[in-house]
Parts: sequence; C-alpha cells; structure tokens
Amino acid sequence: MSPTQHDPLAASFLHDFATMSTFGATPAGGVDRQAASPADIAQRNWLHGLLESHGIDVRYDRIGNQFGLVELAPGAAYVVVGSHMDSQPTAGRFDGAYGVMAAAHAAFRLIDEWAQTGHAPRYNIAVVNWFNEEGSRFMPSMMGSSVYTGVLPLPEALATTDPGGVTVESVLGQAGFLTEWEGPDAVSCAEIHVEQGRILENSETTIGLVTATWAASKYEIIIEGAQAHSGATVMEDRQDALYAASLLVVFARQLADRFPGQLHTAVGKLDVYPNSPVVVASRVRLLLDLRCADESVLAQANIALRAECAEIERTAKVRVEQRLSHEWGIDPFQPAGVELAREVAASLGHTHGEIFTVAGHDSVNMKRRVPTVMLFVPSVDGVSHNEAEFTRDDDLCAGVDVLTEIVRRLADGALTR
Amino acid sequence: MSPTQHDPLAASFLHDFATMSTFGATPAGGVDRQAASPADIAQRNWLHGLLESHGIDVRYDRIGNQFGLVELAPGAAYVVVGSHMDSQPTAGRFDGAYGVMAAAHAAFRLIDEWAQTGHAPRYNIAVVNWFNEEGSRFMPSMMGSSVYTGVLPLPEALATTDPGGVTVESVLGQAGFLTEWEGPDAVSCAEIHVEQGRILENSETTIGLVTATWAASKYEIIIEGAQAHSGATVMEDRQDALYAASLLVVFARQLADRFPGQLHTAVGKLDVYPNSPVVVASRVRLLLDLRCADESVLAQANIALRAECAEIERTAKVRVEQRLSHEWGIDPFQPAGVELAREVAASLGHTHGEIFTVAGHDSVNMKRRVPTVMLFVPSVDGVSHNEAEFTRDDDLCAGVDVLTEIVRRLADGALTR
Repeated sequence: MSPTQHDPLAASFLHDFATMSTFGATPAGGVDRQAASPADIAQRNWLHGLLESHGIDVRYDRIGNQFGLVELAPGAAYVVVGSHMDSQPTAGRFDGAYGVMAAAHAAFRLIDEWAQTGHAPRYNIAVVNWFNEEGSRFMPSMMGSSVYTGVLPLPEALATTDPGGVTVESVLGQAGFLTEWEGPDAVSCAEIHVEQGRILENSETTIGLVTATWAASKYEIIIEGAQAHSGATVMEDRQDALYAASLLVVFARQLADRFPGQLHTAVGKLDVYPNSPVVVASRVRLLLDLRCADESVLAQANIALRAECAEIERTAKVRVEQRLSHEWGIDPFQPAGVELAREVAASLGHTHGEIFTVAGHDSVNMKRRVPTVMLFVPSVDGVSHNEAEFTRDDDLCAGVDVLTEIVRRLADGALTR
Repeated sequence: MSPTQHDPLAASFLHDFATMSTFGATPAGGVDRQAASPADIAQRNWLHGLLESHGIDVRYDRIGNQFGLVELAPGAAYVVVGSHMDSQPTAGRFDGAYGVMAAAHAAFRLIDEWAQTGHAPRYNIAVVNWFNEEGSRFMPSMMGSSVYTGVLPLPEALATTDPGGVTVESVLGQAGFLTEWEGPDAVSCAEIHVEQGRILENSETTIGLVTATWAASKYEIIIEGAQAHSGATVMEDRQDALYAASLLVVFARQLADRFPGQLHTAVGKLDVYPNSPVVVASRVRLLLDLRCADESVLAQANIALRAECAEIERTAKVRVEQRLSHEWGIDPFQPAGVELAREVAASLGHTHGEIFTVAGHDSVNMKRRVPTVMLFVPSVDGVSHNEAEFTRDDDLCAGVDVLTEIVRRLADGALTR
C-alpha cells in the first residue's frame, strides 16, 4: 500500500484530482479541454463550486482568470498560487490541472489548520486558474497571466479569434467569466507542475527546484510560392511553398542534431494554402521554435536558420519571410525562492534538485512581477502533451505537501521584507 | 485589330465568356468557384438561363451534372460536349469554364445553321457542365463524370463531405441540381480545355490533339507519430509525424529530379494533427502523386517511394501507411478521334500537333465509354490553377471553331458505325 493512501489529506486531493480529470476525458485516458471549450467551461464551473464549498470566494478578472480568494489578512496583498486547467487537444490530465488542484488543496489545508490554531498570516492567498495557458485554440499561449502581468495588452487578447472566428471576448463573456476587475494584488507566487521531461525520473528525484527557463527564439515563417497545377506544370517552373516549408522542417530537425542534447527545435503548426489535391501550394505559414540552455548555442542556431531561409528561397524559388514572434534569454527565478523550496523539500524529507524549465509556464510571467517559486514533480518517461502523460500518486502528493508548506511560509512573509 | 474581332460569332463567344468570368471573380483576375459554392451555383443558374434563351432544354442528373439538351434527332443518342465550371480556390478563369462555354457556342452555331439549312443530324447534342471536376472541396475530383460513367458509385459520391461536414447530396439538393435521372445516352464525346502547360506555346501550335494521358500513381499517405511537448521533450524521444512528412515531401521533389522532364511529382494537400504551436505532431495525412509518360519510369519511382517510406519510418520513429488511391497507365484516346480532330484543324487552317495530357479531365472518364475527342488550346507561360492563367482570344476562338466542326461531324455520325 502506498504511503499516501494512509493520509486522509492525500486521499482527499487524489479524489478531487480524479473528479477533475473527468472533464473533457478522452477514451485513451487523457483530456481534450482547449481554452473556453465546453469541457473547460464545465470544469471551471465545477472548480468554482469546489472552492466555494471550502468557504473561498471566487472571482474572474478582465481576461477570464479564475481566482479563489482566501482573505485572512484583510486589506493585505495575496500569495498567488496555481496554474491552468485548459489543455492541448488530446493531451494529458496532469499538465496545468495538477498545479491548480494542488494549489486549491494547499489553501484548503491552511484554512482548516489556521481555523484550528487561530494563526493570522501576514498575507492572503489567491488560488488561480489562469486562462488559456496552452494557446492551441487562441494564440498566444499564457494569455491570462500575460494580461495580468502587463506583458500582453488586454484589447489584443480579447480580440483574438479561434480558427472559427470566435473571439476570446465573446466566448468568455457568454460563459460569465469576464469582469472589469484587474485581479488581486500579488505579493508573491508559487506554481507546481509536472516536469514534461525525464530528468527528475532519471535522477530519482521527487521535487524539482526550477532555477531558470531555457532561452528561446520563436518564429512565424511565411513562405510565398505560386499556385500551379500539380500535375501539368513542369517541375522547374514550380514555386512550391510546401516543398520549401518541408526543407525548413527537415533543416530544423538536423539543426538540433548539430548540438545534441543542447538545442531543442520544433515545428508544431503548419498550414498550407490552398491545400488542394491537385494544386502546388502558394503559401505555407509555420511556427518554428528554437530553445536552448546555452545562449551562445542559440545564437549560432539563429544564424544558421537565417542562412537556410535564404538558401531555401533560391532552391525552391519562393519568398521566405522570417518573423521573430518571441525571444527570451536564460531567465532566472529569484534565488531566494529556490532556497526556500530547497529548505521545505528537505524539511519534509523529499529528494530534490535544481532543474531548468524548457517549457513556458504562467509563473515565468509572474516572476517578472513578484518573487516566484516554481516546483516540478516527475513525469513518467517524460511524456507530455500526450494522453499517456502520467505522474505517480506519491509524487503528486509529495508535491502538494511541499507546495502547502511553501504557501504557508509565503503567507507568513517569506521572500518579502 | 485581332481577326476574331471582325467575326460576330467570335465576338458573341467572347462576350459570354467575359460574363461567365464574373462569377466568383477575384481581384487578381482569377476566379474562386469551388464545387457547389454560392459562386458555382449562381453561375450554373446563369448558364441555365443562357442555354434556355437559345431554345435548349436544361436538365440535371442524379449527381448534379448540368446538361443542355439539343434534340434534333428525336429518340437518337447524344454527342456529349463540354467540361466543368467549378474551380480550385483562387484559380484561373479558363480551366474548365472555357470548355463549357465553347461547347455551348458550338451548339448555338449548329442550331442556328441547321435551322437555316434544314439539315437533320443523325444524333442529338448535349452540352455538359460536369459537377465537381476539381475535387478541392469534395474529394475525389472528376466526381460528376465518374458517376455518369459508372467509375464512382452514386451513394459514395452523394455522401462525400466537405471540411465543414456538408454532404454533396445536401448542397446539390438545396440548390435544386439533383434528380433521379441518369443523364442522356451518349454516343460520342468532345471536350476542349486549356493546355495547362507550355508545349503548344513553345511550338507555336494553336490546337493540341490529345492522344493519351500520362500514367499516374496517386497515394494517400498517413503518418502516425506521437504527441509530445515540442519544447520539453528531448529530441531523441520525438516521434514527429510532421518531420517524417517533410522528409517525404522533399524526397518526392528529389525523385522528380532523378528523371528530369519525365516524372512529375507533387504533394498539394497536407494536414497536421493537432497542429498546435507547442505540440509535436502525432499525425499527418498527405496526398502524393507521381505522373509520367513512361510507365517503366513510373514503376521505378513507385519502388523508390516504397523504400523511402520504410526508411522514414526508421529515421523519424513513426509509422507510414501508404495507400494507393488511384492508378492508371498510359491511357489512349481513340486514334480515329485524333484523326478527326487533325482533319478539322487542318481544314480550318490552324496549326496543330499531338500532345499528351498530364492532368485528368472528364473526357478521360468519357473515353472509356464512347469515342471521345479531346482538344487543347495554348496556356500562356503554362500557368494554371493560378489567377494569372491566360489564353489569348484568338486561340480561344480558334478552339471554338474547331470544336464546332468536330461536334457537327460527330452529330452526323463520325466515329460511329
């Protein structure tokens, strides 16, 4: 029997986590819960009720972020703790959702404990479910935390449309998730997430202390060729945008091979026009990412990519437009927060170690505003954005324990003067 | 001044052709008139009225083919003459549409002439606008002529859906283009079309006498990888379906380069799942065509493609399923029809020469049922499936003259016992 099964707090968490995973559940054991989809809306309404059943007041801000406000220090600022419950299509049930439920249970535990002990924390607690972290239906990703932290202008976010032309504003408004409120005043932040890699698993470590993000360069690349009959047109007359795009996708992969283990490259989204069986494509739009823990390697990769785009223009007789859409360097979390997390993990007897995050997270936005602690728990086989994503119960529960203790200390003034 | 401008019959044709080109016209001078789109429906209704204004009875068959029936030999079979008025997205205004209007004017001229001379032809004439030749909205292409000739089962065609889930049956039914009728009884067939290549232009030839189609192998290829986080997942763990698809697109192009001038290869349609910015694609579906005038070269290309699919499975750690969707060999038109066309072109003083068709046409279906004559007129710079597609007025009008004379001879019993 797993140690967590003896623990009523752990059992309560696992029960709520299991219920949460039924929203948008797929037959293969994952979830499909894109931002503001019916499943996402239903799950938010369910979380609303769960938080209220623990005496927590629920409010939505002007970009649909969902906050559970635990006000124990009237007028004081808030420790913001949470993640996101939206998912990629056919995705795993841990990504983001785990962090929201862990935050909710951290709050439940502290509310109950402080009610018994009469302890008065210095700050309040806000459990958060950020809107649209994934960005699969509405781009860009991390939309809710980007507006909250001032990185993304509100009007731009509200006007964003999905492929069917539906705006963020209309879908949030219809669901009742939109107000004029700017959200709670934050003093610090914590987020726990599954690793989405295999470093913790390989090193048999339970708690990852996130020290920084990888550097990244993200491009939107538009390739313009010319429509032609895909049968009759002689090969040398073709200006095939899809051929050019394919050369670029293959190049991106080979570029990663030049820096083994260091550089991650990807093209996940690629749209072809007119995408008809007998027409040479005139236009392809694709998103290409370069990510690296070494900024000098990333710089080399960027130079190579630019040269390759020019080469492909010649080879495929097309025009390649390379637009840098996002770029960031090695971006550290506050070292004091890492130390806090290390102390807590050690005090609770969990193995722990420092780790980078390759993926973006809402806490990457938050750390630019307030001291922020980010934790990882292991992902089995590193599988993520996949219905087979899995984290063991013991790791989930260890994470909730560590997060609870960190939130307690943050509420008592850790990381603040 | 162009010679055709002195000719009232030519002027009448050019006037109707110009009017026809306004349906679905694009700012860049092309048309966007996919099968059963509002523009296609409006154009069919306009053609209906034009045919009726010349005393021609208009009927639709059970797959929405539009027939203008000129019954001058009561009870006799029909010379079927025409092409298609649907287009690819952002396409040219000549492809298909020219052949329908040329057929209509051939009928107008013969009706008027025979009304004056009292000549009684042996067969009737059916002007045809085949439904959905292009296959961009509803696959497969050449749908109307395929059902008419028995190549494609009617229920399958009617149940075909567009990307929005709309069926052929519902859209044709709503437009009033669907009946139980199987269409007229054909005795012979003629079609004129723009070349969509530059052979006639380069050889300064006005009339192409189509002798055969290139051989072709058309594949639907499904690549199955695994969804993963496109940032966090280490490169060697990825089973990236889009990387595999891109290797295949690049291979197809390089395969054509191995047989310069002989082999045409293309991937025009490629769909990615889940096609999200931060997800490694789990699935790509693409359509890959090989076309060649030499069946032994095509066989070599098919063998190389199979080997490459197996190689890509290893390289990209994916599964590649290669489904042969269509295949045909060098497929000749009746030599007597080619001779008839040669005689007519010569008698009218137009330069002419034999030519293959690389693209598929409705007459390729028809020639399997009845003696069929196919003619080409030049395409400037060989541009096709592109808004810049162009054929000069003199060539258009020469084609109508030749087609009219061929239809006259077919109606009088040429190519039949």
